[in-house]
Amino acid sequence: MSNSPTAQRAAVIGLGSMGAGMAGSLLGAGFQVSACDVNPEAVARFAANGGQAAANPAAAAEGADVVVCVVVNAAQTEAVLFGPGGAAETMRTGAVFVSSATMDPAIARRLAARLEETGRHYLDAPMSGGAARAATGELTFLASGTKAAFDAARPALDAMAGKLYELGDAAGQGAAFKMINQLLAGVHIAAASEAMSFAAKQGLDLRKVYEVITASAGNSWMFENRMPHVLEGDYSPKSAVDIFVKDLGIVQDMARAEKYPVPVAAAALQMFLMASGSGMGRDDDASVARLYAQVAGVTLPSPKA
Amino acid sequence: MSNSPTAQRAAVIGLGSMGAGMAGSLLGAGFQVSACDVNPEAVARFAANGGQAAANPAAAAEGADVVVCVVVNAAQTEAVLFGPGGAAETMRTGAVFVSSATMDPAIARRLAARLEETGRHYLDAPMSGGAARAATGELTFLASGTKAAFDAARPALDAMAGKLYELGDAAGQGAAFKMINQLLAGVHIAAASEAMSFAAKQGLDLRKVYEVITASAGNSWMFENRMPHVLEGDYSPKSAVDIFVKDLGIVQDMARAEKYPVPVAAAALQMFLMASGSGMGRDDDASVARLYAQVAGVTLPSPKA
Repeated sequence: MSNSPTAQRAAVIGLGSMGAGMAGSLLGAGFQVSACDVNPEAVARFAANGGQAAANPAAAAEGADVVVCVVVNAAQTEAVLFGPGGAAETMRTGAVFVSSATMDPAIARRLAARLEETGRHYLDAPMSGGAARAATGELTFLASGTKAAFDAARPALDAMAGKLYELGDAAGQGAAFKMINQLLAGVHIAAASEAMSFAAKQGLDLRKVYEVITASAGNSWMFENRMPHVLEGDYSPKSAVDIFVKDLGIVQDMARAEKYPVPVAAAALQMFLMASGSGMGRDDDASVARLYAQVAGVTLPSPKA
Repeated sequence: MSNSPTAQRAAVIGLGSMGAGMAGSLLGAGFQVSACDVNPEAVARFAANGGQAAANPAAAAEGADVVVCVVVNAAQTEAVLFGPGGAAETMRTGAVFVSSATMDPAIARRLAARLEETGRHYLDAPMSGGAARAATGELTFLASGTKAAFDAARPALDAMAGKLYELGDAAGQGAAFKMINQLLAGVHIAAASEAMSFAAKQGLDLRKVYEVITASAGNSWMFENRMPHVLEGDYSPKSAVDIFVKDLGIVQDMARAEKYPVPVAAAALQMFLMASGSGMGRDDDASVARLYAQVAGVTLPSPKA
């Protein structure tokens, strides 16, 4: 089916763990998919799985009905669209650009406006869910955009999403919802780390702490998900400290611009910055617990031999 | 059965919404229960339900096998035990004092040591669960103490508890677990409030925010439980702002004494203090969202007429 002349054509920009899974979901759903990445090995793996390798976003987007951009931040997204070899010029008129990076809503609005001037659509669609759910087409998208953008993106979203929230009729709203989630998620990781190392400081049995808290009013999704890393002493990155340095940084920028105080998120950001500055930026974000332990002379569990 | 000469005898000190429910659970399980409270109406209701009214802790504790203390804080607990008309002198030797107030573990250890010197037992047993679960005997206790203390308290705990965590062999450990929970719970309420009013500032649909966040990685037990109060504009106290002024205050005291930094909990405490200082101390703790709204010129939902 992927070689059918009537198949929809999709481009995927960025073949990291998320983008590779999403490209696979699109191939599996019968799309013709072209993709590019700065890492030639990722592109080779994609080609071996039936995708068409492209040299840059412009080449990947040529003739595509939908361009899915799976990069890290706003600057990369802007480069993918409007930089040298960017996708905006080669996307056909009426095609849709699906932007998944977490970014300031004001930037999402600006990118959308600039693309829409050229007759292409922009769907603001940050996502949640890890690489496993990307591979099985079960991501959650927090999307906003015009009806035309949703209509053009829907076949691709159907292939990639387990859950699609339609959050508004303009770019920026999806990004805003994502930032609210990131504010909470970042604070909860920092709070979980503060609490867990404080429990260790008091000599409490940390497995018992995990059992009690996950059954109590102090629980959070992040406490439940991240604190097993501390119990196992395993800080290999599932999600890195620097992700929240970035995302809580965006929260600060947004909040300052709107004259809205975020003292709790600000305190959490400082802890991620301390962890990153101490050399743990690329380690798992539960490393914030290691930072507290280091500062306060607490011993946390060591990794199993 | 409650008049059987072989029935266990229990005293309940404090007949607020929690203590009244616990006294009812004990009566229902066949205990002979005597109780006191500073509020004569609460005592009259208890007597009408088959309990024996007492003038003070000393009178209530006379001849009791177990004394359940359901007061607000460490100072009240100390007064119940060792103040004028206190229970410590009249409890029989070998009886157990079950302390449910949230307090600094160091104080729990000190009260336990002082009582144990007199030949009585002390169970450090802070609890969670509201008045509804107190009434049905389904509270959760975070308990620690000697084997003798647990043995003496077990029949009463069986009557009052849905879940009993046995967290250590000395007073203080139950209190420490409770404080870890309160640190997280307080931070999560402040973070939920910060995020929800920030979402309102950006003009997002708050019911959609609730739907998305409770299904996402940014969720917490407290977000899910408290933010409906903001959606309804209902700040009648289910649990008051001043509870977390107290409990995060204890966290600060403990942490400072142990030279352990708690920057995230400290930021959260300041928000509860601002809410309390602004006149919302006795309102629902979701009022922290109203404080953010007030400071940042945000309109939150009004109560239904």
